[in-house]
Amino acid sequence: MPRVTDPTAPHIALVGATGVVGTTLLRLIEERGFRYRGLDLVASARSAGREVTVEGHSCRVQDVDGFDFAGVDIAFFSAGAGVSRTFVPKAVAQGALVIDNTSAFRMDPGTPLVVPQVNAHVLGTRPESGVVANPNCSTIPLVRLLRPVQERWGIRQVVVSTYQAASGAGYSGVEELRAGARSVLDDPDSAGVTGTFSPSLAFDVIPSIDRLLDDGFTFEEQKMLQESRKILELPHLDVTTTCVRVPVANSHSEAAWIECHEPVDRGELVRLLAGQDEVTVHDLDTVGAFPTPRTAGDPNRVHVGRVRVAAHNPRGFWLWIVADNVRIGAALNALQIAEELTRRGAL
Amino acid sequence: MPRVTDPTAPHIALVGATGVVGTTLLRLIEERGFRYRGLDLVASARSAGREVTVEGHSCRVQDVDGFDFAGVDIAFFSAGAGVSRTFVPKAVAQGALVIDNTSAFRMDPGTPLVVPQVNAHVLGTRPESGVVANPNCSTIPLVRLLRPVQERWGIRQVVVSTYQAASGAGYSGVEELRAGARSVLDDPDSAGVTGTFSPSLAFDVIPSIDRLLDDGFTFEEQKMLQESRKILELPHLDVTTTCVRVPVANSHSEAAWIECHEPVDRGELVRLLAGQDEVTVHDLDTVGAFPTPRTAGDPNRVHVGRVRVAAHNPRGFWLWIVADNVRIGAALNALQIAEELTRRGAL
Ligand SMILES: NC(=O)c1ccc[n+]([C@@H]2O[C@H](COP(=O)([O-])OP(=O)(O)OC[C@H]3O[C@@H](n4cnc5c(N)ncnc54)[C@H](OP(=O)(O)O)[C@@H]3O)[C@@H](O)[C@H]2O)c1
Ligand SMILES: NC(=O)c1ccc[n+]([C@@H]2O[C@H](COP(=O)([O-])OP(=O)(O)OC[C@H]3O[C@@H](n4cnc5c(N)ncnc54)[C@H](OP(=O)(O)O)[C@@H]3O)[C@@H](O)[C@H]2O)c1
Repeated sequence: MPRVTDPTAPHIALVGATGVVGTTLLRLIEERGFRYRGLDLVASARSAGREVTVEGHSCRVQDVDGFDFAGVDIAFFSAGAGVSRTFVPKAVAQGALVIDNTSAFRMDPGTPLVVPQVNAHVLGTRPESGVVANPNCSTIPLVRLLRPVQERWGIRQVVVSTYQAASGAGYSGVEELRAGARSVLDDPDSAGVTGTFSPSLAFDVIPSIDRLLDDGFTFEEQKMLQESRKILELPHLDVTTTCVRVPVANSHSEAAWIECHEPVDRGELVRLLAGQDEVTVHDLDTVGAFPTPRTAGDPNRVHVGRVRVAAHNPRGFWLWIVADNVRIGAALNALQIAEELTRRGAL
Repeated sequence: MPRVTDPTAPHIALVGATGVVGTTLLRLIEERGFRYRGLDLVASARSAGREVTVEGHSCRVQDVDGFDFAGVDIAFFSAGAGVSRTFVPKAVAQGALVIDNTSAFRMDPGTPLVVPQVNAHVLGTRPESGVVANPNCSTIPLVRLLRPVQERWGIRQVVVSTYQAASGAGYSGVEELRAGARSVLDDPDSAGVTGTFSPSLAFDVIPSIDRLLDDGFTFEEQKMLQESRKILELPHLDVTTTCVRVPVANSHSEAAWIECHEPVDRGELVRLLAGQDEVTVHDLDTVGAFPTPRTAGDPNRVHVGRVRVAAHNPRGFWLWIVADNVRIGAALNALQIAEELTRRGAL
């Protein structure tokens, strides 16, 4: 039973508890038996008052406006960057350690940006800012695979195209995809349904995620570059990306071309990747095997397939990566940060 | 009226006339007013005897088995590589010039592989083999954009990830996508519908098109490398690809990273691309604008958007490319080859 009376276990708060990431975090806390002393579910006025059952106990959702963070040891934030910018400073001032799923503080020099399988060492002490940031959902699986490659062969360049699921835009994204698909199946010329996505996502692909920046890249594309550099502590790492939304409900995919400083041996590469924590290499024994978002299997692992070294350029190779964006890319990574902090007594 | 009594106009045959490519070719012949003296529609025993209305005339589909190519000036083949391997030699022996949409003869040294906007010059004389090959549907839009870039800046490397539509697998692919989508909308845990695709394509992405080769690349991926080299007459061009099927009914997309020998100026690049025949650059004036398969517009043009030069590596840039795989990638290209041959009197 994760809810314990042990006074050393943390009191936790989930801000954005009713969202895709928040509800998955709740499920993972149960699944993984994460021990906590007390729990607050927090969202906006829209959901405040709603009753949610957690481990058989009814728990009432509270409005973040006016919520008191005093007595909260860990506050998980997954309610958008705006909410984090407004309420994280208050939570920290009231003594909570914040694990933030949004982009609000990721590039802040005083805030560690953590993927426990890659750079847990930066969690040694409680961060000065009081905030640990969780990276972007496409960055996390990528850096988990880039790290061992960098150590073995050195990376010259990474070129990534993503295939990102609707759930990356929250509950409304998934619902809009389904409604749009119904509309287009009824009438192939239907314009579909827009709102969260534009144009409609059903039976289409949209090469635009998050806002456009002055240099022509999107913020999502910039995150993958900047966050990879920060997590891997490689300030000049060359990562360039096109981020594309695809009509998949859940789990992001990435086609990653990685060019190293030295020729890469495929056999050694697949063994190296398969040896990483919580990584499944689908074509370890069966050349050409691959995961897909709907068939990859265990959502708590990073899935890799189609590992190919180019015959005409053996320093370069492709990976096809599939990872549950809500678990690997957000809630599970956040909880693994909390587990690591608890293990280190760094709260 | 394309059907004419002029004895110099060709008699044409469409093998695979009932398929996605064949029916689109028929429509394009009408749309573009391609002049022909006589027309034969050819398919398998499954469709033989079916009546198809062409320009108000009823035309009976004939079985390719036993079909007599004598008197046919141009035979368009789009019935699969196996059918081409069996029947193209007969058509050529009986005097027809074949324009082949399949992969059967593309890499044959005696067979020109033609994208009229790129290498029409190889159509100067009637080819010795009697066959002109139409490239793969993902290769055609790509080489139409690579050619001017190569001439201006020289290409060091091309890294492409594709987002390929169900119609690339013919009528059965589109029907299977729709049936699978209905099944998953009814029950999110449904395994969908397989047959043409495996696993089911609806709400999923599948990084595997055509058969797997010994080197771990798929035949589709190899085609993009080998055909680009042949068309552009650059035998050492470095093109590497991951080909992915996405749940889109029609039109392929590609995220292409192109690295040149010299720094590229974005303004000059967009003007250069926009100056190509039948190419629309969506972000010529509006930075960040992009086409998508369902919203690109004119299906007879190659659509480009999200043209971005990387700040940290100005020799490299991204293009987002959308092109109707059935028109640009097959039927329109084939018909433009026929138009070019007619214009040159090379029949
Ligand atoms: N989905 C992913 O794959 C993913 C991955 C990484 C990071 N993230 C980040 O996680 C955050 C949440 O994403 P999601 O996918 O869970 O979105 P979601 O399903 O739309 O849920 C949004 C959550 O935020 C709450 N919220 C919205 N506006 C609020 C406000 N003004 N004050 C307080 N609470 C508010 C919502 O509460 P109500 O019920 O009251 O509306 C809900 O609990 C975003 O910042 C997102 O960028 C998501
Ligand atoms: N779709 C594309 O985007 C695309 C692009 C480039 C190239 N191609 C190539 O074009 C060809 C056709 O593609 P498609 O998309 O039009 O496929 P499709 O919709 O499945 O149509 C196949 C056509 O081939 C005929 N056919 C099949 N087996 C035959 C046989 N044994 N003998 C005679 N005719 C036979 C079919 O006739 P029945 O009605 O008798 O079955 C039908 O007319 C393929 O080689 C494909 O690789 C397609």
